[in-house]
Formats: sequence, structure tokens, C-alpha cells
Amino acid sequence: MLAENSYGKSGIRLVHRRRRSDRHEIRDLTVAVALEGDFEAAHVEGDNSVILPTDTMKNTVYALARTRGIGAIETFALALADHFLGASAAASAARVSITERPWSRLPSGSGEHPSAFALSGAERRVVRVERTRSGVSVRAGLEDLTLLKSGSSGFSGFLRDAYTTLRETDDRIMATAVRALWSYAPGEISWEPVSRAIRSTLLETFADHVSASVQHTLHAMGEAVLDAHSEVTKIRLSMPNKHHLLVDLSPFGLDNPGEVFVATEEPYGLIEATMKRGR
Amino acid sequence: MLAENSYGKSGIRLVHRRRRSDRHEIRDLTVAVALEGDFEAAHVEGDNSVILPTDTMKNTVYALARTRGIGAIETFALALADHFLGASAAASAARVSITERPWSRLPSGSGEHPSAFALSGAERRVVRVERTRSGVSVRAGLEDLTLLKSGSSGFSGFLRDAYTTLRETDDRIMATAVRALWSYAPGEISWEPVSRAIRSTLLETFADHVSASVQHTLHAMGEAVLDAHSEVTKIRLSMPNKHHLLVDLSPFGLDNPGEVFVATEEPYGLIEATMKRGR
Amino acid sequence: MLAENSYGKSGIRLVHRRRRSDRHEIRDLTVAVALEGDFEAAHVEGDNSVILPTDTMKNTVYALARTRGIGAIETFALALADHFLGASAAASAARVSITERPWSRLPSGSGEHPSAFALSGAERRVVRVERTRSGVSVRAGLEDLTLLKSGSSGFSGFLRDAYTTLRETDDRIMATAVRALWSYAPGEISWEPVSRAIRSTLLETFADHVSASVQHTLHAMGEAVLDAHSEVTKIRLSMPNKHHLLVDLSPFGLDNPGEVFVATEEPYGLIEATMKRGR
Amino acid sequence: MLAENSYGKSGIRLVHRRRRSDRHEIRDLTVAVALEGDFEAAHVEGDNSVILPTDTMKNTVYALARTRGIGAIETFALALADHFLGASAAASAARVSITERPWSRLPSGSGEHPSAFALSGAERRVVRVERTRSGVSVRAGLEDLTLLKSGSSGFSGFLRDAYTTLRETDDRIMATAVRALWSYAPGEISWEPVSRAIRSTLLETFADHVSASVQHTLHAMGEAVLDAHSEVTKIRLSMPNKHHLLVDLSPFGLDNPGEVFVATEEPYGLIEATMKRGR
Repeated sequence: MLAENSYGKSGIRLVHRRRRSDRHEIRDLTVAVALEGDFEAAHVEGDNSVILPTDTMKNTVYALARTRGIGAIETFALALADHFLGASAAASAARVSITERPWSRLPSGSGEHPSAFALSGAERRVVRVERTRSGVSVRAGLEDLTLLKSGSSGFSGFLRDAYTTLRETDDRIMATAVRALWSYAPGEISWEPVSRAIRSTLLETFADHVSASVQHTLHAMGEAVLDAHSEVTKIRLSMPNKHHLLVDLSPFGLDNPGEVFVATEEPYGLIEATMKRGR
Repeated sequence: MLAENSYGKSGIRLVHRRRRSDRHEIRDLTVAVALEGDFEAAHVEGDNSVILPTDTMKNTVYALARTRGIGAIETFALALADHFLGASAAASAARVSITERPWSRLPSGSGEHPSAFALSGAERRVVRVERTRSGVSVRAGLEDLTLLKSGSSGFSGFLRDAYTTLRETDDRIMATAVRALWSYAPGEISWEPVSRAIRSTLLETFADHVSASVQHTLHAMGEAVLDAHSEVTKIRLSMPNKHHLLVDLSPFGLDNPGEVFVATEEPYGLIEATMKRGR
Repeated sequence: MLAENSYGKSGIRLVHRRRRSDRHEIRDLTVAVALEGDFEAAHVEGDNSVILPTDTMKNTVYALARTRGIGAIETFALALADHFLGASAAASAARVSITERPWSRLPSGSGEHPSAFALSGAERRVVRVERTRSGVSVRAGLEDLTLLKSGSSGFSGFLRDAYTTLRETDDRIMATAVRALWSYAPGEISWEPVSRAIRSTLLETFADHVSASVQHTLHAMGEAVLDAHSEVTKIRLSMPNKHHLLVDLSPFGLDNPGEVFVATEEPYGLIEATMKRGR
Repeated sequence: MLAENSYGKSGIRLVHRRRRSDRHEIRDLTVAVALEGDFEAAHVEGDNSVILPTDTMKNTVYALARTRGIGAIETFALALADHFLGASAAASAARVSITERPWSRLPSGSGEHPSAFALSGAERRVVRVERTRSGVSVRAGLEDLTLLKSGSSGFSGFLRDAYTTLRETDDRIMATAVRALWSYAPGEISWEPVSRAIRSTLLETFADHVSASVQHTLHAMGEAVLDAHSEVTKIRLSMPNKHHLLVDLSPFGLDNPGEVFVATEEPYGLIEATMKRGR
């Protein structure tokens, strides 16, 4: 019995150039579309009569980018989700994910260049829209925001057992690559300004928190977003603990007062939580 | 309000060598451990008193590999999940994931070398065990099994709209990287032989299916597993459509009778479904 | 002053299907083409009149795959290099690199399936052809051949200084990902059988060598190729030392008699050498 | 006969924290060390008596980071190369490569946070030092500087043959990921300010150039560096052409006046050249 199913197109790379009178604007998106619904005949009998090809989904993304422009990626994702639910009578839900790569203008004299850009970093802005026949949910967030705290970070007082060798510390380097995804309440939202403000809240909290653990800082970050941004109903944070290990220099007759670290990729801690408005 | 949370260690790389009298056996695992439960004090107050460090999780994986050996990765994952639920009174669930990289023996004369190996491929065997205070679930599967059908594959009779340009075809190359994860019913199971048998069922069905779409073949693969393997209660298959596009050689005065293709990475189709025993 | 320059197209993905009466044959290549020569006007003045576009290079690869088929990748690379040196009067050299991904047939009953395949592994066969106005060189090799020796491998008697903490060992795991590239003498060569034979020599030597270091084994492998294959004038081997570290289990009251290792990605040793026929 | 050989340690990850009275400074380096020289006995006979272990190289990098700090990565690489040539009597050359990941301070009120940082981007600063018994060469550069020009970029007047289908354009998007490596003349150099100034020259030239091709812009960038920075004797630039293809929207009754593009990863152009001070 077919229990759940979805199909769609991922990795649709779209770069949109808008030529204003004095400058160009560049948007760089990767779009994924998926449909869920009653596609049982396609699975069981190979009957494709209600299957809108994923190639058509790709074409549609490019065509709608031309006819309506991009705007906030939330707006573009909502338009795409609307379109695809309309285009597929068999679909019960259309999901659209957009990831945006940030380009910043190169300098030009004392200002900014009108048509030359550098990729700003590894951080990505993301949106996930899911539209069903009865409603829509909008989540937004960011990925690969790599942060490091070299102060106000410790880890002590933890549970010990026969396999515990970790030393307590009140001074460690804490590094992570934040993935955040928050849900919006229904209503009018200024997508881009709100998203920037939430990002600022996350950064400020990370920077200023006196951290007893990754869990502790993650929770403070999520709580700060819920406190400061009433549009947000829920936030999920995923924060790997990218360990920085103090190097033992004693074999060489040297001390190491919190100065020389080895950054490691594996193994890594993985701390994840969802916070929502409570009682 | 803290809604869901988990923490643990990922990317624990473990290579185990067993020296038998006449040959070595090598196992190459990547382990991830995560705990869920009542860790609210750690999040809210920075109180780590019930937090077993992720460093301890890593140590434990290595220690248990020594004291009990590996065996089937299902068995090792079950032992680890048991251990961690016991080690953390605050945990309500322990999840253990293991990915195994396959090494095969190099040839030696007419036989196999006792202690020299080559990595067999990109395919990985995987296990996901989740143990709660009331029970345990075992899922097993495989990842990055890259397959290609150059015959018996078409795609036609699909829904068309204003954005559809795709041509119908009864002869295309279908390529995918299968990710499969199936759930076992409770009871005694010969983990490794059953896993190999399920893999064979997946491969045979993929090879012999007369495919009307990726959905059609995916469903046939899942159905074949449920039909042939009564231990399996449910199977999830994720199969990207790694498109191979026929190159238009007409500008050069050449035909291209299904011979020269360009393999593309982006965009790609993504087809996913879960099948379970019916009624 | 422009000292050296080259331009070309990389990442040309070509899949070729040959339909024989009873089965399909699949070849999966990634081609790179580069031209060197007198392209100064393009660089200095923006005069493109002698620049064959890299887009044309790509088209040509697909067209020649149709008109002449593939054959051994050495043969295809030679044909492409010939073509491009002919197509560009300003070029002094044409370089063609081809990487082949290996597909193996899926089983079918007691035999092999005629049109269903699995990607065999991460190993790649490679060819580098460079044709100038006065001659041609052919190099062939392999990449990402990941090997592991769990016996007959030690490292001892090394130089020590104030920063040396490494212990001597006569029993370690040695793992590497071999990259080999060998040069052929001029003359008729059966490219594919010779390439397979050289690969076998590399594997046998790796497996059977009593290794005092990666350098020692690398040299034995290169020497064995030069001894056994008179067509080869020179061979370059690059072998990272993918360290497997014995885990210290003594904090848990356990010994570790060469059984439990952690495989690490960083840092890694890197051992490289070229061997050629002597005097 | 052993023709060339080198060995060393790569992927040495070093994070250095300097605690000043009012703020922390963080440096994040990846170091690679290699020695060339007379290591024939190790290769041929397995005699390791003149082999300084690569593990010792790693230890030394950490120890010297403690005893002398980092400073400019050119300075640190020079110190390491000196050390290793001294530590290995058999070595004829020591090569040290350093790649630096850039961290920028998070904001704090109206200023900058003393101990919280974000990874600034994918761009990396690099240094390559090679010291022999008779001298030293210092090269510096950058990698993964991803740039895009949406104006003043065309490609026309090129050579055409039977396989040419590319259309001429005077308005395209040109995107690349610059890799630059320049050589310094002997003498006192303010490594970091000079490196920043060269980077600015590269960016300005890229932004303002009226580009007839990637070759044309690459040459202008190299020439500008040689013109403006007398310390530089030679510069090598590698600039992939990351194609942005105009999407054909005519099947949907839409025009596309240079607005909607698909960004592609494969195939890609690859343009490379070295420029040096001329006649």
C-alpha cells in the first residue's frame, strides 16, 4: 500500500537580473518544488495522466520569474506554490523551497558598483512554503551561518559515568554553523525586514550569551526570537558543536593557556531543538 | 517553551580489525548517537547535571567495540541504544545511526588476500535504531546505490499545460542513486542475510521492470520487497531522477538515435514514497 | 608580459550508449579540453578572431562521440587532440583529459543484465593526452583507488627531534587513496588491456609488500610497474596516508591490542614520487 | 630510478586565540608542509633513519604557534620552512602552504564584539613558501573569490567552425571564482597591507573592465597588479567561466530581454594565464 509519496524538481538554479536605470540588481536562487497527492495510478499502473512533469515545474519557475519578477523569496515561493496547486488537480499539497545566495556590490570609488558583485559568504537565506487545499504555512530561516565565541563559553557540572574523560572548562571556544527555520503566524509580514531583524536577534544573543553549553545558548537564541518577534510562532535551531580542542604542548615543555587549538570536523556534537510560544 | 530537543554526537569514525588465525576482518563504521528527553534545565538554566557529554558517547562507542565486538551493525546499534538509555536517566529515547563502508579483499593468487582490502564503492549500508522506555524500532537500508537502466524505460502520457515542452519518450536512460530504509517487524531476524536479500530484490526489480516513470519503478521495487520479505513492515524509497539528456546533433548534420547523452547534476527530479503492508 | 596561457572547457559530461543486438554498452566520461598557443591578441586587445569558443569544444566532443564512437579513452582523447590542434591554427598544443566512471552490469538470472547497470565504485580511470605540432604524449592512470593494508605495515627507526612524540610500530593499518599516472613510450599499445594489467600490478604489490613506510610501498609499486610493463617509461604515484589511530582505551580499564581504531581525515600524510627507467 | 619525491603533512588545522586586554583575536589556518630531498633509502630499502615523521611536522606547527605566535601567514610560513629545512639534513627544500579562513567580528552595540565572530565567506587567503639551501620564494594569493559582472561583458568576433553554434553577445553575465597567486621580489614587504592592496586592484579591475572575454579581463587584472605593485614579479590567475545561460522563454510566448538566466556548474570554461614583468 502506498502510504506517502511526493515528487518534484530540485536544484532549479535561477539568476535574475533586473536592470534599473542606474544599476543592476541580481538575485541568485535555487528552487525546489514538490507535489503530494493522489498519484497512485502512476505508481501502481504507470499511468501518468495526472503527472505534471518535473520538467514543466522547472520551466514554470523560469517563466514566472519573467512574468512577475522575484521580490522577497517568500512572495515568490507563495506564488509558485499557488500556481502548482492550481496546475495539478490531483495534488493535495505543493511545497516550494527556495535558497538564496547573497551577492554584495563591489566598491566603486566612494560608492558601490552598479553591475559588479562578489558572493558574500557561505550563509544562505531559505524559505519553505507548503500550500494545501485548506491553507498555507510559511517558514523562513538561514543556513550555514558559521559562528564562533572565544569568550563567555564553558561546559561543566555534567553527568559522569565510567566512560567520561572530558574535563570541565569555563573557557572554551564554541563554534557552530547555525541552521534556523522559523514559522510565521498568518497575516501581513514584511518578509525581508523581519527576516533581517530575526537574524540580528540570533547574532546578538549568540554574541552576548554567557554560555553553559550549546543547548543553553541555542535556547537563549530561540527564546530571544520568540520574545522579540511576535510574528514568529515557532523556531527550530540546529547547531553542530564544531569542536576546537586545546593542543597538549607539554611533551615539548610548553604550556598552552587557551591559545593553540585544533579545529576538528569529525566527530561533532549535534544539538537541535524547537521552541514555541508556551502557556 | 521547549517543544522538542535532542543532542548527541555524530561522525564517530570507527574501524575495527579482528585478527583471525588466517586472516583479518575489517569493519568501517560511522556512528551517530542522539538522546531525547527531559533536558529542560540544561536549556533554560544551563544546568548540565543530567547531561551525559557527547564526548562520553564517543568514548563509549569505542569501548563497546572493544568489549563486545561489532557483529551486524543492527546488533551493535541495539547494544549502543540500550547502553545510552541506561546511562541517561533523563533520556526518554536513544537513537543510534550507523553507516558502514564496504571493504572487499584484494585478490591473492587464486584466492583472496588475508589483510589487504579495497573500498568497494560509494554504496553504504545503514541502520537506524530508536529505543524508548517502552520499545525499540529497527530500520535498515542502503544509500548511494547508483543505478542506470538503458532499456525498458519511458515517460509518456503525462499531464500537459502551457509550460510543458517535454517530449514523450519510450526509450530513455533512467539513472538514480537509491536511498532505501525499511522497518522490521519485531522478532528474531538474521540481519545481514536479510539485508543482502532485500538488496537483491531491489536490484532485480530495478533491472527487470518495464518502467513508465521513476514513480512506477520505485513502487515496483518497494512492493517487491514487501512481497518477498515478510520481516519488512514498511519501506521508504528516495530516488532522484539523474537526468540524461539526448544531445541535439542536428546543427552538425548528424542524427542522434539514442546514442549520445549529457549527464546532468542540476536540476534533478526527486521521487519519494513509503509503502507499507496494506489494508 | 603574458608568459603562459591556456583556455578550454572542463566538465564535459558524456554518456554514450551503444546498442548491440543482445545488449547495451554504456560509457560514462568527463572530458576536459585546453589549448595553449599564441592567444595574445585576445588577452591584450580583446580580439577573439583566433579564439575557438569553449562552447564549440563541447559541441565537438559530442559530435565526435557520434561520428566515431568512443573505444578506449586513450583513442578518443587522441582523436580529440588531433581535431582541436587542426581546428585552431593559433594553438601550439592541445591537451585532452578524460576521466571514466565505471559501470558494471547488474546480475540477471545466472548471467548479466543486458541494459541495467550499477556504478562500480569511486575509482576512476584517467587519460591525459597532449599533442603539439611536433609530437604527442599519452599518460594514463587511475584516481581514488582507496586501499587498506591491515598487516605487514610498520613505521619505525625514523628521525626524532624535540617535537617527535610518535611511537614506533610494527603493526599498523595503512590506508590510502592511490592516484597513479604513467607515461607510455611511443608505439602501438593495447590501451585497455595494458591499463588493466598495470592496475593489477599496483594492487598485487600493495597487497604483498612488507611495508616500512608509505614511501617504501609507493616505491615498490612504481618499480613493479616499470619492471613488468615495458611500455611504461615513467610513473607518478600520489598516496595520502589516511591515518588510522589506535584508540587509547586505558581510561576505561581496557587494553586495545590493535583492534579499535579511529579513522581520521585531517591531518593526513601526503607522499608523492615519480619513478622512471634508470641510469 | 626515483626521479622526484616529496612527503609531508597536509590539512593541519590550527586555530590561534590571542587574548588582548580588551578583545580576542582569532586566526584560523590550515597548514601543509612538504620536504623534498635525498630520501632514496627510505623509498628503496625502507630505511627511515633520515625521515622526520609527518606527525612531528604537525606537532611542530602547533608548538611554533605557541612560542612565536602567528603574525602574517607569510611570516609564519617562512619560520616553518626555516625550521623544517633545519630539522631535516636530508631535505633540499621545504615547502609550506597556509590557507587562512577569515573571521569577522560580530557587531556589539555601536561597535564590534570583543570575542564573537562570524566566518566572513568562502574566500581564502593563501601563502606558498619554498625554501631551499640556496634561497627562498614567497608567493601569496587568494582562492574562491567568487565574482560576477552583469554589465560591460560580451563575447563576439570569435573563430567559427562546423561545430560552432554559440551566438555572439555584447551583454552577458560573466561569473568566476578567482584563484590568484603572485610571486614577490626579494626584500622587505608589508605582507598583509600589500596583500590587501593587490586584492583591491584585482577587484577594481574586474569591476570596471569593459570585457571582450574572460581572457581579456584576466589579462587586465594581472596587468593592473604588475603595474600598481612593484613588489610583484609574476602573477598567475585561474578563472573558470561559470556560465549563466539565457533561458529561452519563447515556447511560453515570453521574451527574455537579458533577465532570466540559469546558472550552470558543468561544463565550465577554464581560463588560466601567468603574467610577468616584460621587456
